[in-house]
Amino acid sequence: MSGTAMKLVVVGAAGRMGQTLIRTIHAMEGAAVFAAVEREGSPFVGRDAGELAGLGPIGVPVTDKPLEAFLEAEGVLDFTAPAATVEFAGLAAQARIVHVVGTTGCAPADDEKIRAAARHARIVKSGNMSLGVNLLGVLTQTAARALGPADWDIEILEMHHKHKVDAPSGTALLLGEAAARGRGISLAEHSVRTRDGHTGPRPSGAIGFATLRGGSVIGEHSVLLAGEGELLTLSHSATDRSIFARGAVHAALWARERKPGFYSMLDVLGLN
Amino acid sequence: MSGTAMKLVVVGAAGRMGQTLIRTIHAMEGAAVFAAVEREGSPFVGRDAGELAGLGPIGVPVTDKPLEAFLEAEGVLDFTAPAATVEFAGLAAQARIVHVVGTTGCAPADDEKIRAAARHARIVKSGNMSLGVNLLGVLTQTAARALGPADWDIEILEMHHKHKVDAPSGTALLLGEAAARGRGISLAEHSVRTRDGHTGPRPSGAIGFATLRGGSVIGEHSVLLAGEGELLTLSHSATDRSIFARGAVHAALWARERKPGFYSMLDVLGLN
Amino acid sequence: MSGTAMKLVVVGAAGRMGQTLIRTIHAMEGAAVFAAVEREGSPFVGRDAGELAGLGPIGVPVTDKPLEAFLEAEGVLDFTAPAATVEFAGLAAQARIVHVVGTTGCAPADDEKIRAAARHARIVKSGNMSLGVNLLGVLTQTAARALGPADWDIEILEMHHKHKVDAPSGTALLLGEAAARGRGISLAEHSVRTRDGHTGPRPSGAIGFATLRGGSVIGEHSVLLAGEGELLTLSHSATDRSIFARGAVHAALWARERKPGFYSMLDVLGLN
Amino acid sequence: MSGTAMKLVVVGAAGRMGQTLIRTIHAMEGAAVFAAVEREGSPFVGRDAGELAGLGPIGVPVTDKPLEAFLEAEGVLDFTAPAATVEFAGLAAQARIVHVVGTTGCAPADDEKIRAAARHARIVKSGNMSLGVNLLGVLTQTAARALGPADWDIEILEMHHKHKVDAPSGTALLLGEAAARGRGISLAEHSVRTRDGHTGPRPSGAIGFATLRGGSVIGEHSVLLAGEGELLTLSHSATDRSIFARGAVHAALWARERKPGFYSMLDVLGLN
Repeated sequence: MSGTAMKLVVVGAAGRMGQTLIRTIHAMEGAAVFAAVEREGSPFVGRDAGELAGLGPIGVPVTDKPLEAFLEAEGVLDFTAPAATVEFAGLAAQARIVHVVGTTGCAPADDEKIRAAARHARIVKSGNMSLGVNLLGVLTQTAARALGPADWDIEILEMHHKHKVDAPSGTALLLGEAAARGRGISLAEHSVRTRDGHTGPRPSGAIGFATLRGGSVIGEHSVLLAGEGELLTLSHSATDRSIFARGAVHAALWARERKPGFYSMLDVLGLN
Repeated sequence: MSGTAMKLVVVGAAGRMGQTLIRTIHAMEGAAVFAAVEREGSPFVGRDAGELAGLGPIGVPVTDKPLEAFLEAEGVLDFTAPAATVEFAGLAAQARIVHVVGTTGCAPADDEKIRAAARHARIVKSGNMSLGVNLLGVLTQTAARALGPADWDIEILEMHHKHKVDAPSGTALLLGEAAARGRGISLAEHSVRTRDGHTGPRPSGAIGFATLRGGSVIGEHSVLLAGEGELLTLSHSATDRSIFARGAVHAALWARERKPGFYSMLDVLGLN
Repeated sequence: MSGTAMKLVVVGAAGRMGQTLIRTIHAMEGAAVFAAVEREGSPFVGRDAGELAGLGPIGVPVTDKPLEAFLEAEGVLDFTAPAATVEFAGLAAQARIVHVVGTTGCAPADDEKIRAAARHARIVKSGNMSLGVNLLGVLTQTAARALGPADWDIEILEMHHKHKVDAPSGTALLLGEAAARGRGISLAEHSVRTRDGHTGPRPSGAIGFATLRGGSVIGEHSVLLAGEGELLTLSHSATDRSIFARGAVHAALWARERKPGFYSMLDVLGLN
Repeated sequence: MSGTAMKLVVVGAAGRMGQTLIRTIHAMEGAAVFAAVEREGSPFVGRDAGELAGLGPIGVPVTDKPLEAFLEAEGVLDFTAPAATVEFAGLAAQARIVHVVGTTGCAPADDEKIRAAARHARIVKSGNMSLGVNLLGVLTQTAARALGPADWDIEILEMHHKHKVDAPSGTALLLGEAAARGRGISLAEHSVRTRDGHTGPRPSGAIGFATLRGGSVIGEHSVLLAGEGELLTLSHSATDRSIFARGAVHAALWARERKPGFYSMLDVLGLN
C-alpha cells in the first residue's frame, strides 16, 4: 500500500485545527485528504473542505457520516474533544485503521475506552504532537539522570505570546516532569515557581521555572543544566502552529505499517 | 605623559577586588601598579602587593599613606566603601589626579562631597564598571524609545550562580530603569516581577522580569523586545569577574587626558 | 484627518507581497485598504482584492488606474520593481500623498527621480522595512563605535531556511556595513567570510561572518561583540514574513503627518 | 575506603593542566592530592606542589618516582603525552589503582598497551573530560537518529577565543561524528564546512558547520536540528577551563568502586 499516498480523514474539519490539518496534509508528500468530517447538523456539511481551509476547492465535500469515510480510508486525524474522540476510536477499530489522537483533557475512563479500541485500531495518542517537543522531553530525562543534583542545577524557561493567560506553560511543566523523572524525584516537592526579593541561595535539587511573555511568540522552551564552569541548554522553538498537524501526519504514516496497538510519539520517534 | 604606562594606585589592595585590580593592571598594556594602599593598622602593610595578588613579587610594598602615593601617581582605582571613598576623593583632588570609583552604596551626602572633589580631580563613578553592561543600558533605552508599547513588549531575563540570594539582580533592575526611561514611564508602576498560575493576558506597556539560578554563572542579562512576528534581543554575558577591574583601568586611561570633572561610564564609552 | 483610518493603496496587489500587504492593512488598526492597483492588462483587474488575498470579499476591486486611486487616497505601499516605482513616485507627487517604497534594486538614476518626487510626496524608502532589523543596524553602529577594535571582536551570524541560495544574507551584510561604519573602516577590507582548517589567530579589527541553513527559518541575525571576559549579543529574529508589510504600514502612518520629503526607516524610528 | 578522601596522584604536576588538577582536587570534597609527579631531572622536583599551583604549601613535594607514589595511592590523573601515558598505565596496573587518561594523540599501538594495562588497572580514557560535552554527544546522536534527514537539517555552530588557530574545533567535529553516527552516514561525505556567495540550496542530509571567533570565549558548541516550523537546539557552554579537571576527578571517584577495565566518560555518566 505504501507506494501510494495514505488516505486520511480529518475530523472536526471546520475548526481551526481541522483547517490546519487539511492544509498540512495537502502540502505533505505521501498523504492525501480523503474525507473531512463534521458533526451532524453542522452548517459546513456539503461544503468543499479545501475551500474552508483557504486552499481553494479540492473535491472533498464535508460529510457527517464518519463510519462511511473511515471504512474506505487508512487513517484519521483527531484534535477534537474527549467524547467525540472516544466515539471515533470505536469507529476506527471497526474500520481497523490508524487513529491519531491529539485531543487533550481525556478522563481516565475515556483513556480506558480508547485503549480498548486499540485492540483493533492502531492508535497514536499524545498531549503534544510536535516531534521536537517530544524528543526534548526524552533528552531532558536522559540529561537529568546523567547529571546529578549535587553538581547540576535544572532550570526551565519558556516564552509565549502576550495573550497567554497562564504560567508556566503546560509544555514547561511536562519538561519539568521529565527532569524530575530522570532524577527520580517528585516535581511538586522540588519545583521553584517564582523568585522575587530575598530568595536565599538556590535549594539543592530544585527544578526552577521562569516565564517570559511578549509579542506573537508561538512557543519557546529551554531546559538548562548548570554545573560548575559549564552549562548545558536544550531548547525547542516553534515558529509555526502547523508543527502539531505535521507531527500528526508523521505519526499516521508511521502507524500505517504497524500492528494494532496503543502508541505514543516516543514510539514514532523510535525512542521506546 | 601618555607614551608611558599610567601610574595607578589601588586602594583596598588586600581585599578580593583590590587583588583583582592588581592582577588586571599588571596584565594590561599602558598601565602599571604604582602603589597599593591599605588602612592604617592592616596586617598587610609592608607586604608585596604582587605577592598578595598571587602574581609573585612586583616590588610594590603595601602602604598606609595614601596621600604620599597619590602625589606621585596619575590615578587611583577605588572599590572600597563610601566613607573611605569620600576621603580618597579629597586626596585625589589635592593630587589633581584621576579617581575611578566603583564603590556602591554612597548616600547623597557622600555623592555631594565626591562631586565637590571633582572640581580638581578627574572622577569617573559608576555602579557597574563593565563596559558591556553600561553599553547594554544605553542600547536598551534607545530600543525602548524607538519601539513603542502599543506594538512591542519588553522583558528582562537574568541568570546568576546558585549562591545569589536576591532576585532580580541589581543589573536587571538597572536595565529595567533604562527601558522605562526610554518609554518615559515609571518602572515601579509597570514592572511585572513574577508570573505563576492564572496571570491573565500580559498588560500592555508592562516591563517583565524573569530569573534563572544555577551553577557558577557569573552574570547573564537579556533585554527582549517582542513585536508581532519579530523579536529583538540585547544580551550581555560576563564570563570573568575581572571585567569590572578592566573597565576601571579603561576608565582611568580615558580620564588621563580629560579636564577635572565628574564623569560616568557613558562618557568613557563616548555616548554622552 | 488622523481620527480616521488612513486610506492606503496597494500597488502590485496580486503579487505575493501585495497580498500580504492587503491582509496586513486589513488586520491593523488605523489603516484601511482604499484601492488595489495592478498593471494594465492584468487578469486580476476587476476582481476583489480581499478575495485575492484570501480574506474574502472586502469591496475593493483591483484597478489599473493608479492616478485615479492616488488622488483620493492618503498613501501608497509599493514593493514592486524600479521602473514601476519611479512612475508611482511621480503620481504620488501629483497627488501629494505618502509613498512607502520597499522596492529593491533601484539604480542611482531611479533614486534620483524618486528623490525629485519627494519635493511634493512624502516618501519613505528602505531596503528592509522591518522596524526591528533597522533598529538592530543602528544599535550595531553605536556598539561598534563604543567598543573599539583593540579589545572587542565583531562577529555576525545569520540563519535562514534550507532553500536560500546565497550567503551571507543581504541583511547580514547590511549589519556588517553598520559595524564597519561605527568603526570607521571599510567592510570589504576587514571582513572574514569563511573559516576552515588552519586559519591562524583572528586578525585584530576583523568583522567575521558565519552562516547557518536549515528548516524553514525565516531570518535570524546576531551581531556579537566579544571582549575579554564579556560578550555583547544583539539579535533579531523574524518569525513571520508579514513584518515587512507591518513596517510599511507603520511608516505610512508615521509619514501621514510629515512634510513632503525623502525619509528612511531611521526617521520612522525617531533615530535620525 | 569510600568514607575517606580518595588519594590521587597528579602526573605532569608542574604543567598548566597539572597545576589546574592540583587546584581542582584541593577544592573538591572526597578527593585529596596525595602525590605530584614530574619527570626525572625536572627543576620542580622537591618543590611543594601546592605552591607551584598557586595554593600555598600543601605538604606534598613533587617527586620523580611515580611507582612509589602509585603504590600508596588510589588513583592517578594524567593529561600528559602518549609515551608517558603508556608507561603510567603499566605502573597503574602494577599498583592496581585507577588511571584517568585525558591525554590526546595516542596512536593505535599506544591504545593497545593502555587497554592491556586495563586488565589490572581501572582506566577511564576520553578525548574530552567534560561531563557536559560528553553528554551533548550522546544527546546529539539520539536526536539525529530520531529526526530523519528528509525533514530535519543538522547544523553545528561553535565559538572560541580569538587566539584559536583552527576551525572547526575538535569538539565540533566530534559532535558532527555523533550526528553522523545517529544518521548512519559518513561525516566526511556529508559535511558542509563553509558557505560563501552563491551556494545553491542546502543539500538534503548535509551536516553544516559554522565558526565564530572572538574575545576570550573558552568554548561554546551548539547542535541545531531545524525542521519545518520548529527548531531543536542542544548547546554546551564552558566558562572555566577547570571543567576538564573536575570531570577527571569525577571519573576517578566513579572508577574507585569499579572492577579493573577500560571505561569511557559514557560509563561515568551511566549512559553505556
